[in-house]
Amino acid sequence: MLRPNGNYRNLKESYLFFRIGKKVAAYREAHPDQRLYRLGIGDVSRPLCRAAIDALHEAVNDQAEAKTFQGYTPECGMPFFREAVAAYYGRRGVSLKPEDVFVSSGASDELGDILDLFDPSSAALITQPTYPAYVDANIMAGREIRYLTAGPDNGFLPMPDKAPEADLIYLCSPNNPTGAVYRLDQLQAWVDYANARGAVILFDAAYEAFVEGDLPHSIFETKGAETCAIEICSLSKTAGFTGTRLGYTVIPKALERDGLNLNAMWERNRTTKTNGISYILQKGGAAVLTPEGMEQTRESIRIYKQNARVLMEALDTAGIRYWGGKNAPYVWMACPGGMKSWDFFDRMLNEIQVIGTPGEGFGESGEGFFRLSSFGDPEETRIAAERMGELLRR
Amino acid sequence: MLRPNGNYRNLKESYLFFRIGKKVAAYREAHPDQRLYRLGIGDVSRPLCRAAIDALHEAVNDQAEAKTFQGYTPECGMPFFREAVAAYYGRRGVSLKPEDVFVSSGASDELGDILDLFDPSSAALITQPTYPAYVDANIMAGREIRYLTAGPDNGFLPMPDKAPEADLIYLCSPNNPTGAVYRLDQLQAWVDYANARGAVILFDAAYEAFVEGDLPHSIFETKGAETCAIEICSLSKTAGFTGTRLGYTVIPKALERDGLNLNAMWERNRTTKTNGISYILQKGGAAVLTPEGMEQTRESIRIYKQNARVLMEALDTAGIRYWGGKNAPYVWMACPGGMKSWDFFDRMLNEIQVIGTPGEGFGESGEGFFRLSSFGDPEETRIAAERMGELLRR
Repeated sequence: MLRPNGNYRNLKESYLFFRIGKKVAAYREAHPDQRLYRLGIGDVSRPLCRAAIDALHEAVNDQAEAKTFQGYTPECGMPFFREAVAAYYGRRGVSLKPEDVFVSSGASDELGDILDLFDPSSAALITQPTYPAYVDANIMAGREIRYLTAGPDNGFLPMPDKAPEADLIYLCSPNNPTGAVYRLDQLQAWVDYANARGAVILFDAAYEAFVEGDLPHSIFETKGAETCAIEICSLSKTAGFTGTRLGYTVIPKALERDGLNLNAMWERNRTTKTNGISYILQKGGAAVLTPEGMEQTRESIRIYKQNARVLMEALDTAGIRYWGGKNAPYVWMACPGGMKSWDFFDRMLNEIQVIGTPGEGFGESGEGFFRLSSFGDPEETRIAAERMGELLRR
Repeated sequence: MLRPNGNYRNLKESYLFFRIGKKVAAYREAHPDQRLYRLGIGDVSRPLCRAAIDALHEAVNDQAEAKTFQGYTPECGMPFFREAVAAYYGRRGVSLKPEDVFVSSGASDELGDILDLFDPSSAALITQPTYPAYVDANIMAGREIRYLTAGPDNGFLPMPDKAPEADLIYLCSPNNPTGAVYRLDQLQAWVDYANARGAVILFDAAYEAFVEGDLPHSIFETKGAETCAIEICSLSKTAGFTGTRLGYTVIPKALERDGLNLNAMWERNRTTKTNGISYILQKGGAAVLTPEGMEQTRESIRIYKQNARVLMEALDTAGIRYWGGKNAPYVWMACPGGMKSWDFFDRMLNEIQVIGTPGEGFGESGEGFFRLSSFGDPEETRIAAERMGELLRR
């Protein structure tokens, strides 16, 4: 008898968005004529930039003619794409070689797949509240998970001095769901800690395009990250690729553990377990990463940031404490009057028809907090903020 | 210290195409003016069909406007794509529900990822000669592999009566590299065997579009496969998607082992470890699977089959034994005069500048055989066949 992977028995129901969906559907059925205002989704709403669209069309045309037709692509990425990523980092002052860069189908895909490189006996360290997929992917692998609490005490930016022992460290900055962003000296402390204990940091940089000023976009802005960090990136939030799919991963050639080179292992993994990523998508992605493409796509980020400002102003006026929003697309607010997050969700839905995300869905240390997304339509966001302001002043 | 996945130490160098590449490069350097004829690649050469190109352009346009913009897609596949696959099976007399179908990035990606569903303690059964990635993906997972020899004695179609004990059974029909195709009664014997011992068959149907007449395209043409089989398919060879990337996987709702439902497990895997497959690619793929798209793409398959016929005629004339070629894009020939496959490779390259693939690269039971691909340009294939015919008559 074939034995299935029994670790799946240890997964809890993935109920956060399912439960939200059920509550919203029930409300809709009872109030079919009410308009709803969505601040819950992590998905983007703005279309792709012109440079990406043009490049995608050109690549589709290439696939229509024998003389330009592109068959199998190199599994780790087409040279033009790996070079475009390295150049993008270069413009931010981080020196990478194209061979350090691997193309991917997106950050979520890569965060799951990359675990193949690690022995299940090494425990994972996850800061909580957390993106739920970090947890579930490690449960599927049978890996022990230890948590480090992010909360108001540490500005939702926990540091290694309080960390339990573990060697596979997840850091997400700007953070989903809290919007908190590590400063360079804080990331340096994590890198020094990881190098000292031989740990590896999985750095989720999916929201780096929202960072402004001196805050780091990449863990490779620190000293020594090339011997302890893997950075997982995506064009989903940078350029609206949530439904188009494309990302990239940086695994420095200098990253080794126990005599195995992780860059070489990942190359072996990709050449065995994939046949490369779509030529069409790599063409579109490379166009986004040009200076012209980045300028076009920054317009969308400017609009999302304006949405976040509108939400933050409503909270400021109501005297509600919040985190994130400035260098991140998420505003992480304290529920008013110590309410529980699902109770506040119900109140928002029933009284003002605004849908957000209860913090408890990101782990127990998210209880008492609530996530607002800035990825929606500006007019819808403005109305939702106005209604929320009213509700909070009641 | 983080422990890397030590199973990677057990991988052998993936040297087949690397070694071929080195030999070809050396020949080129010594003979810069010689034209080379390629019968080695498994990649296609014909462009995508018009229906796919049109649908890809339309989908790109959808991503350019806010009102048609598609963000995150359902992780297991967009309803239109799952329905298109179910309809494609329906036209061949196999009844599937859309929920049995999962979209994928392609067969090679899926053959790696799907192993997450199985406990490493269940041994794998692989027929040899074999696509090398089956072996390496199982080595990475630390799974024991047992081999079943495919050879002239069994027409390269080994049956379960000789199989060593194992519960994860790989079958590839039409086969890569041998081109052999199981008859329905032979597949039925495998399905009965798997059901009797509680095994699961991973059925690689990447080359099904080359099947003609009464031979089965799908393991789901047998009775009882819905309780023992997963079918992994691709548009790579069906419709030239090698560099565009798209595939699909069928996991029947009735497939359970040890109280776990494999369809539900895969849904959980996809929703955790992916954020869906590109909307643009799913639109292109669904267009291929319409009757119109299939008719257009069959023209490419007709041309590849004509290439195979040209190769088979050359072998017939020279009195060389071969398998495949009729319902498969590969012709699997015996090396002349009992030559070893790398020696025959060298002779083909040095004497007639034709590049094929030595059988030994597909495992030791491939020794003495040689793979010819029909995916090349017709004129190049014609010249290569002529030269090969001459060489074999010398």
